[in-house]
Amino acid sequence: MKDFVPPNFLRGVGKSPIRKITDRAKPGDISFGLGEPDVPTPDVIRRAAIRAISEEHNGYTLQAGLPELRQCVAKAYPELNLSLDQVVITAGSQEAMYLVLMSLVSEGDEVLIPDPGFVAYPTIVEMAGGVPVYYRLPAARDFEFDVDDFRAKLSARTKVVICTSPSNPTGRTLTSDDIAAITEALRDTGVFVISDEIYRELYYTAERPGSISSSYERTVVISGLSKSMSMTGWRLGWICGPTDVLASALVLHGYVTTCASTVSQKAALAAWGPEAEQARVSIRNTFRERRDHLLNLIARELGVRAVTPDGAFYTMVDISRFGSSLDVADRLLDHGVVTVPGSPFGKEAEGFLRVSFCADKSKLNEGVRRMKAGLGTLGD
Amino acid sequence: MKDFVPPNFLRGVGKSPIRKITDRAKPGDISFGLGEPDVPTPDVIRRAAIRAISEEHNGYTLQAGLPELRQCVAKAYPELNLSLDQVVITAGSQEAMYLVLMSLVSEGDEVLIPDPGFVAYPTIVEMAGGVPVYYRLPAARDFEFDVDDFRAKLSARTKVVICTSPSNPTGRTLTSDDIAAITEALRDTGVFVISDEIYRELYYTAERPGSISSSYERTVVISGLSKSMSMTGWRLGWICGPTDVLASALVLHGYVTTCASTVSQKAALAAWGPEAEQARVSIRNTFRERRDHLLNLIARELGVRAVTPDGAFYTMVDISRFGSSLDVADRLLDHGVVTVPGSPFGKEAEGFLRVSFCADKSKLNEGVRRMKAGLGTLGD
Repeated sequence: MKDFVPPNFLRGVGKSPIRKITDRAKPGDISFGLGEPDVPTPDVIRRAAIRAISEEHNGYTLQAGLPELRQCVAKAYPELNLSLDQVVITAGSQEAMYLVLMSLVSEGDEVLIPDPGFVAYPTIVEMAGGVPVYYRLPAARDFEFDVDDFRAKLSARTKVVICTSPSNPTGRTLTSDDIAAITEALRDTGVFVISDEIYRELYYTAERPGSISSSYERTVVISGLSKSMSMTGWRLGWICGPTDVLASALVLHGYVTTCASTVSQKAALAAWGPEAEQARVSIRNTFRERRDHLLNLIARELGVRAVTPDGAFYTMVDISRFGSSLDVADRLLDHGVVTVPGSPFGKEAEGFLRVSFCADKSKLNEGVRRMKAGLGTLGD
Repeated sequence: MKDFVPPNFLRGVGKSPIRKITDRAKPGDISFGLGEPDVPTPDVIRRAAIRAISEEHNGYTLQAGLPELRQCVAKAYPELNLSLDQVVITAGSQEAMYLVLMSLVSEGDEVLIPDPGFVAYPTIVEMAGGVPVYYRLPAARDFEFDVDDFRAKLSARTKVVICTSPSNPTGRTLTSDDIAAITEALRDTGVFVISDEIYRELYYTAERPGSISSSYERTVVISGLSKSMSMTGWRLGWICGPTDVLASALVLHGYVTTCASTVSQKAALAAWGPEAEQARVSIRNTFRERRDHLLNLIARELGVRAVTPDGAFYTMVDISRFGSSLDVADRLLDHGVVTVPGSPFGKEAEGFLRVSFCADKSKLNEGVRRMKAGLGTLGD
């Protein structure tokens, strides 16, 4: 009898390299690995969920999501003037990314992906039959956007460009100049931009980072509440953008998950009031303090270069003088601290570790102490 | 600039025909449409969810789901002796079906699908590049399994067979003889069976319906708590079966949704105790009473043939003498009662309406009264 053979689109696809290393964590290890806020989900969200569970029946919603929730999302992008059929609620921004890439990418289409960038992008692009083409965010320039390289990578076969701001893994944002440059480069190309804005509310700059959706019409925005409201396990994300793309994504969504969790959707309704806004600010401040604390620690204790993130909760730490990022991450794991090697995020990230600061100050202190001990065994 | 063109696999795919008609319901309409229990989610489940939300942080779980929950699911199939890596928790049985079909079906593979059967099966099979081949559950024999037709439809290209017991839309189950016949027909073929058991706990026969997984090794079981625990909006399903197939489904799951809602997973942990078992029995009894009430009403008031379901919460009502199923469903909608035309479920279901009894007795009474009024305008 024939053995089971995975289908072509899954051949060679495995667990994400991030999960591979974070899954090896032992009890007692300090985790600078997964991108998951450790702060509590705000009370206002929890109360809304509990009320819905206690008082209401939680059957299917419309596949696109609760109209009231889509209204809240639409209002969060006032400059886009979205109608309800331009918003789909998803089971987290991961489903959003999957639906949009599957809707936009066909066999042979080129998709521009940031290097370094989130590891799932190229995998899903390849599942859809597309060809990942990487535009460099040069390590030498602290991973800032490089318009020359971006333009050089555009071709007649480019169908989609993925932008992530703030970036995972670097925490860098696109400046308004970067956004203007991308908009200009794409003018009249018909290319679709997927703007992954899952970290947009977690910023440490004076202004909230802009969205290319404001200047470039063919933008599909992907976001959700996982990071800004510490709701990773609630699986609540969304897509918004052009009606025709959203219509395709919605059809696929119906066959993939039917609808997002109704409890999570009702909880999410509470994410736009004044109490939620206060929580958002408080979470942002917490991460800003941790960022500053961690950057100081790294400079003082490790004496290595670390990129100052504009947002998200990662810093890229340059460990190139100690060995490959995989080897160094492995060694640090032996010393009880989980970090993520840069290489899976792209060539530019080799020589770096992604260090997340989803941990309180005492954990940051102890984690850096362990990093120091681990790096000490590697020498220069 | 080029217009957006949906990708090939989504071309021609639209909203499910069931949603198309149920979405047209007006306020005040009686719904015999969607397959969604109206009874409350049992208290024991709600309490578990509320406790998790109040007392715990709900971050990502392992992509495969909480180990304790996978353990509960594994124990629910004692004869399969499942290890934890043979169980994946999904965002409802819809995601389970999507993952398994995408994992098993490649370009050109034939997939045997019951006619009538759930409308999403052929759509997802075609998305995967497969070829739906229908085996008849003959209307003339109250939609029971027909082994001769089943054998006739098997070919060297058959990769997967989908079995649904109890069936949506007919409520009929596979008897132990049917299961033995399928097992025998598939011996040494290497064909995979997907056994959709989402309605298995809702049965009106003396014994719980059997699962082909007990006799046929290459069976992938799909199920969840949506129907038996009235948890449709919680999106909690699972897959269990051969390790290699589950490994592929898990990889895809990670890119599609990351993990099922953590709140829903923790709530689901409460679905296997004695209080949950009592709730399951109570829900089953409620639907049995409604079934009997509805069948009596239809016989007495409408004088048409209705199939006695062994499980699930649908009866197939023969309205062939009044017109096409689409026309009759349309006319009934004008009279304030939502039913689902049989034709989208397959050729065998033309001439029938799927009438669900997810409604209390007074709604059943009023709905049948409206059906009578609507049918009265169509005459024989």
